[in-house]
Amino acid sequence: MTIPPPGRPNGLRRGTNLGHVAGFNDSVILSYIRAAKSGTSRSDLRTATGLAPQSVSDICQRLLDQGLIAETGTSTKGFGRPRVTLEIVPSSRYALGIHIDPATVTSVLLDLAGGLVAHYSTDIDPDDPGLVIEQMAPTLDALLEQTGVDRSRVVGLGLAVPGPIDAEGGTMVDPPHLPKWHHERLRERLGAATGLSVIVDKDVVAAAVAERWAGALAGVSDAAFLYLGSGVGVGLITDDLVVRGHTSNAGDIGHLMVDTMGPLCDQGHRGCLGTLCSPLHLVREGVARGALDPTPHDGELGHAVRRLAALRERVDGGNSAAREIVEETAHRLARAVGIIANMHDTQMVVCGGPAWAPLADLYLPTLHEQAARAFSMSSLHELEVSGTDVGADVAAIGAACLVLDERFATRPSSLLLG
Amino acid sequence: MTIPPPGRPNGLRRGTNLGHVAGFNDSVILSYIRAAKSGTSRSDLRTATGLAPQSVSDICQRLLDQGLIAETGTSTKGFGRPRVTLEIVPSSRYALGIHIDPATVTSVLLDLAGGLVAHYSTDIDPDDPGLVIEQMAPTLDALLEQTGVDRSRVVGLGLAVPGPIDAEGGTMVDPPHLPKWHHERLRERLGAATGLSVIVDKDVVAAAVAERWAGALAGVSDAAFLYLGSGVGVGLITDDLVVRGHTSNAGDIGHLMVDTMGPLCDQGHRGCLGTLCSPLHLVREGVARGALDPTPHDGELGHAVRRLAALRERVDGGNSAAREIVEETAHRLARAVGIIANMHDTQMVVCGGPAWAPLADLYLPTLHEQAARAFSMSSLHELEVSGTDVGADVAAIGAACLVLDERFATRPSSLLLG
Repeated sequence: MTIPPPGRPNGLRRGTNLGHVAGFNDSVILSYIRAAKSGTSRSDLRTATGLAPQSVSDICQRLLDQGLIAETGTSTKGFGRPRVTLEIVPSSRYALGIHIDPATVTSVLLDLAGGLVAHYSTDIDPDDPGLVIEQMAPTLDALLEQTGVDRSRVVGLGLAVPGPIDAEGGTMVDPPHLPKWHHERLRERLGAATGLSVIVDKDVVAAAVAERWAGALAGVSDAAFLYLGSGVGVGLITDDLVVRGHTSNAGDIGHLMVDTMGPLCDQGHRGCLGTLCSPLHLVREGVARGALDPTPHDGELGHAVRRLAALRERVDGGNSAAREIVEETAHRLARAVGIIANMHDTQMVVCGGPAWAPLADLYLPTLHEQAARAFSMSSLHELEVSGTDVGADVAAIGAACLVLDERFATRPSSLLLG
Repeated sequence: MTIPPPGRPNGLRRGTNLGHVAGFNDSVILSYIRAAKSGTSRSDLRTATGLAPQSVSDICQRLLDQGLIAETGTSTKGFGRPRVTLEIVPSSRYALGIHIDPATVTSVLLDLAGGLVAHYSTDIDPDDPGLVIEQMAPTLDALLEQTGVDRSRVVGLGLAVPGPIDAEGGTMVDPPHLPKWHHERLRERLGAATGLSVIVDKDVVAAAVAERWAGALAGVSDAAFLYLGSGVGVGLITDDLVVRGHTSNAGDIGHLMVDTMGPLCDQGHRGCLGTLCSPLHLVREGVARGALDPTPHDGELGHAVRRLAALRERVDGGNSAAREIVEETAHRLARAVGIIANMHDTQMVVCGGPAWAPLADLYLPTLHEQAARAFSMSSLHELEVSGTDVGADVAAIGAACLVLDERFATRPSSLLLG
């Protein structure tokens, strides 16, 4: 839990000095080189960053010395002399990521460019956290072995977990869908088992960070990632910064009210997003309305997520009850998208997660239409709504991106004296 | 309207250099001196900011030379030698602020310490924007004349207006409650009439900035200002930064659904915060349930805000229908507070505005109880809910604070090359 430093008046900041400036500018240059898919030149970097020629040269040399970038050729523009092309070296550094979902644990290995090198996903027994955690380090070892990636090139391990979390302590705090996971000391245990530095963050925050590393948010400073898993959460980015909140638990929109109908949630409210758009509810409605045959496992989270594919098949087969359920859900999601976008003057909302993928293309037309209609800044700019291209593993990939982000991305706050 | 610079990949930043560092550190030092109500010393500033002794001395000398701070005495700590006390000089700089509300225009003059030096408030004819705008500059002149404040010490003028706004262009864009105010060029006209640099921002953002300058958010990095005026809006602060969104229009929560009941809003939705918690609705319900006598002006915004005092009197007089209306509203506001706090992992929600003041102490017990119950991070930290101490003029004061904030507050982004 974060406790504000005593006596630090609000909005006040530590000072900054030249040492911090250098580190920051290194990150700026590296980020530009990474974002330029086909390489860039020192001259282009000067224009893009506003830095002096000598600074750009010095920084590039440092990055070359560390092996993070390479000179990969030359290009000419007009009558100027040939420019040396700089590119990122994806295999120079790696990050590991694990997403703990109430039904599944997914592990991934990413390279410095954010490319997915390997992944492994397995169903878990959510009632045995000890066993689940024990199996994580060997899984990561196996990923490294299979790919031949040297452990010395792995800069860290990120964990994406359902909230609430204790980010400082590196533990999960009574996640509603994982009742047996009570203050499991994830960072401590995985740090000891892997020898890596471990970051713990919320799954929805990780998903937003993944989307950014994938480049899908290029030019977008204000975005939201709507994550559909066992529940629904949002990863917010405002003015290029990921919103984490006071204790890194931002993104809970489970009780966002999106309908006047539906069953009561655990707090006795009607119309809550987290309840109405959960896979459990969709499957329950599917069975109740005769679109799905009942099974003994319909009350289990992992099973419900998997049954969304069956619901989707029923829609494709022309089942009107199944279509109705999906349409209702799309309207509820659209309501949430409109509320989030109006609250944050958002440019782009990206949707993803395991409960999104099977129904994505059925949801999107309604989302486009309804969310655009609800958007109150439409005379000023468009609200773009899309599905993620990162795939269903977006939270696990995001977990690894947390590490890359912490280590290599630019953050003005990194300029401040510690 | 802000258009992202072409080709600037997301999350990427301009570089920074030593010149910018100096300016930033000046702001850091000035902010600490301002926040230390009874003065501070160079030695305390070194500890607080982490800056080197020589840097602190140089910066203090620059601030002394500019007349922004003064040496006001000495203090001793333990056996050390006496330390010179540094204090802000409130009268060294001033800022003007105007809040345009659908019913009222309020003008204020603040000093550098954020102290209210003068204010003037007047009802307006919302259907004659030309006349309203014409009267603004003479009003500001009168404020300066009455207080004897030299115009050369005024660093700028802030305008707080209902959204949506075009912040870059300095205009209002079809505000729903001011149908005749179509793209009025506020910045241009007031800049020409006053000779001052003019900032235009949303009323809810201005209110949040005012709350911060008033010192009420000391130690609070994640806060929300729930602004109750003609409608309801929110000014968000996350990680010490004010959330403005892509086009400075963040904070619209009018269609946040907070009940399954109530009339339809203009978009055909039921249960919208902006409709259900508007003074118009409260007065309409008051009349319908016999708590208030009908008047011919009950459909006018300014009138409705003023009639909240009568509603309050009826509650105090024991009228149960009036109490019921206030209780319902409190529950709806609490629902909104819970949703906002869960989405942003907020530490503190401050409520204020013209429609808050008359009913504040009736709302607060329900807000405390219900919002705390809805807060999903309660095992990690408390959610504090309070009423503003800045008063009903909070948006006008905030308008002037926008100027002080822009000019004197610390922002890591100010370190980046332009």
